[in-house]
Amino acid sequence: METYFTNLIDFIGTFAFAISGIRLASGKQIDWFGAYIIGLVTAIGGGTVRDLLLGIRPFWMLDGRYFLTTGIALIAMLLLKERLVKWWNMLFLFDAIGLGLVTIVGISKSMDAQLPFWVCIVMGTITGSVGGLLRDVLLNEVPLLLRKDIYALACIGGGLVYFLCRYVPLSTSMTELIAASVVISLRILAFRYHLHLPV
Amino acid sequence: METYFTNLIDFIGTFAFAISGIRLASGKQIDWFGAYIIGLVTAIGGGTVRDLLLGIRPFWMLDGRYFLTTGIALIAMLLLKERLVKWWNMLFLFDAIGLGLVTIVGISKSMDAQLPFWVCIVMGTITGSVGGLLRDVLLNEVPLLLRKDIYALACIGGGLVYFLCRYVPLSTSMTELIAASVVISLRILAFRYHLHLPV
Amino acid sequence: METYFTNLIDFIGTFAFAISGIRLASGKQIDWFGAYIIGLVTAIGGGTVRDLLLGIRPFWMLDGRYFLTTGIALIAMLLLKERLVKWWNMLFLFDAIGLGLVTIVGISKSMDAQLPFWVCIVMGTITGSVGGLLRDVLLNEVPLLLRKDIYALACIGGGLVYFLCRYVPLSTSMTELIAASVVISLRILAFRYHLHLPV
Repeated sequence: METYFTNLIDFIGTFAFAISGIRLASGKQIDWFGAYIIGLVTAIGGGTVRDLLLGIRPFWMLDGRYFLTTGIALIAMLLLKERLVKWWNMLFLFDAIGLGLVTIVGISKSMDAQLPFWVCIVMGTITGSVGGLLRDVLLNEVPLLLRKDIYALACIGGGLVYFLCRYVPLSTSMTELIAASVVISLRILAFRYHLHLPV
Repeated sequence: METYFTNLIDFIGTFAFAISGIRLASGKQIDWFGAYIIGLVTAIGGGTVRDLLLGIRPFWMLDGRYFLTTGIALIAMLLLKERLVKWWNMLFLFDAIGLGLVTIVGISKSMDAQLPFWVCIVMGTITGSVGGLLRDVLLNEVPLLLRKDIYALACIGGGLVYFLCRYVPLSTSMTELIAASVVISLRILAFRYHLHLPV
Repeated sequence: METYFTNLIDFIGTFAFAISGIRLASGKQIDWFGAYIIGLVTAIGGGTVRDLLLGIRPFWMLDGRYFLTTGIALIAMLLLKERLVKWWNMLFLFDAIGLGLVTIVGISKSMDAQLPFWVCIVMGTITGSVGGLLRDVLLNEVPLLLRKDIYALACIGGGLVYFLCRYVPLSTSMTELIAASVVISLRILAFRYHLHLPV
C-alpha cells in the first residue's frame, strides 16, 4: 500500500477505535480525562500488548500521532455529540476498516519476528481486539468480545486468508489488501445479519 | 523428570486450567469463542506474564499444543457437560497437579535468568495463579485468589521447600518432584479442610 | 537528591501506596494474603508496567524492599486499623509525596532510554497512576482515575514543568525537586479544593 494511503487508513482506524472507547465512557461518571484514557486504551491497547509479546518497543512511542488522533476524537465527541450519533453507520465502517488494517499490521509485524503462521494470526487478532477488551475491563463490564461479537473471528478469518494467499503468486500489497478486505467484510456481514456463535 | 512424563503432566495441567476457565464462563452469556478465550487465558495467562516479566518470548509461541489442548477442553466441555461435573474430583486433582507443575516450571525458568531465590518463588507463584486472576477479571468478578483461596500460598509453600531442598544433597529432579508434591498437597489439604486465612 | 533521603522518600511512597490498596481491600471479603497482593499491586504496578514498556527488568526484582515495605504496611494496617484512620491527613501527604517521587523516577528512567519528552511524561504518569488503576480493576470497580480524580493530571503537570526547567540553567537535582513539588502541590490543591474536570 502507498504510504499516504496507509497513513490515512491508520488515522481513520485510530479515530474510530478512540471514538468507540469515548462513547462507551460517557454515561459512566467518567470525566474528560478518563474518557481520553479510555479512548487511548481502545485505540492503542491491542498494538501495545502485541509489541510487548513480540519484545519490541511499543509503536506509539515512536509516533505522537496516535495520542493526537485520540485527542481529536475526544474534541469531536465533545463538540458534535448529537450529530456524531447520526453518522453512526460511517463510524461503524471506519471501525471495520481500522480493524482490517491493524489486523494486517499485527500479522506483518509478527512475520518480521519470524513467528510461525498461526502465532502471526493470533498476534493479528490480539492487535485488533485487545484494545476493546481492555476498554471493557476498565469500564467494569464483561468484555463484549467474549459475549456475542464476531470481532475476533473476523480477524482470524482475515489472517487465514492472508496465509492462504501466500500459496498463490500475489504481491505482498495485494495479499494485504485481500486479507484486510476479508476482515472488513466479515465484520460488516456479521453486524448486518446479527451473526454470532451459540452462547 | 522424563520428557514423556513431563509432557503428559503439562497436558493434564493445561487441560484442567482451561476447563476451570470454560466452566466459569458458562452461565455468563459468553459464546463458544469467548469460552475458548477464557479457557486459554486461564491456562496460559500466568506463564505469559512470567515470560513478559523475565523478558523472554512467551512459551506458547514456540509450541502450538497449549492452544490445541484448550480447544480439546472446550470440545470436551461442550460434549460432556453433565458428565464432566461428575468427574469433578478428578478435575480438581488435575488442577492441583497442574498447579504444582507450573509453579516449578516458573521457578526453574527464573533460576535460568539468574534471579534471587525470593524472586523465583514470586515468579513461580505468578505462573500458577495469574491465569485464574485474569480469568476472574475478564468475567468481571473480584478474583477468587484475593478472597479466600490458598491457591497462591500453596505455590509459595512449594517454592520455599524447593529452595530448602537445595541445602540437601538431592538431584534437581528429586527437588522438583518434592516441591511440586508440596504444592499439590497444600492445595488439596486446604480444599478438603476448608483452610483459609482470616478475612 | 541524596541517596539516604531518596531511600526514605521511596519507603514512604511505597508504604503510602500499599496502605491505599490494603485499605480499599478491607470490607470486600478479601483475606490477609489478598490484601497484601492488592497493596503490592498498588505500590509496584505502575513501575512494573513502565519497565515492561521500556523493555527493562522490573525494578522490584533487584530490590526486596518493596515487598518488605508492603508487608510492613499490612502489619501496620492490621495492628493500628482504627488509629491509622486518624492519621489520614498524614497518609494522604505521604501518598502525594510518593506520587511526586515515582513520577520523577519514571521520567528519569525514560530519559535514560532516549525517549522523546512527551513519552517520558506519559511514562512518568503511568508510573504514578497505573498501580491505583490495577488496584481498582482487581477490586472490580471503575478506576477512580477515570472518574474524577486529578491524580494523573498532577503527574502530567509535574512532567511538563520538568521539561520546561531544562531550558533554564538548573542542576538535575533541582529540576527533579521542582517537578516533584509541582506534582505534590497539584495533588494536594486538587484534593483540598475538590478540583476536577467536567464529567
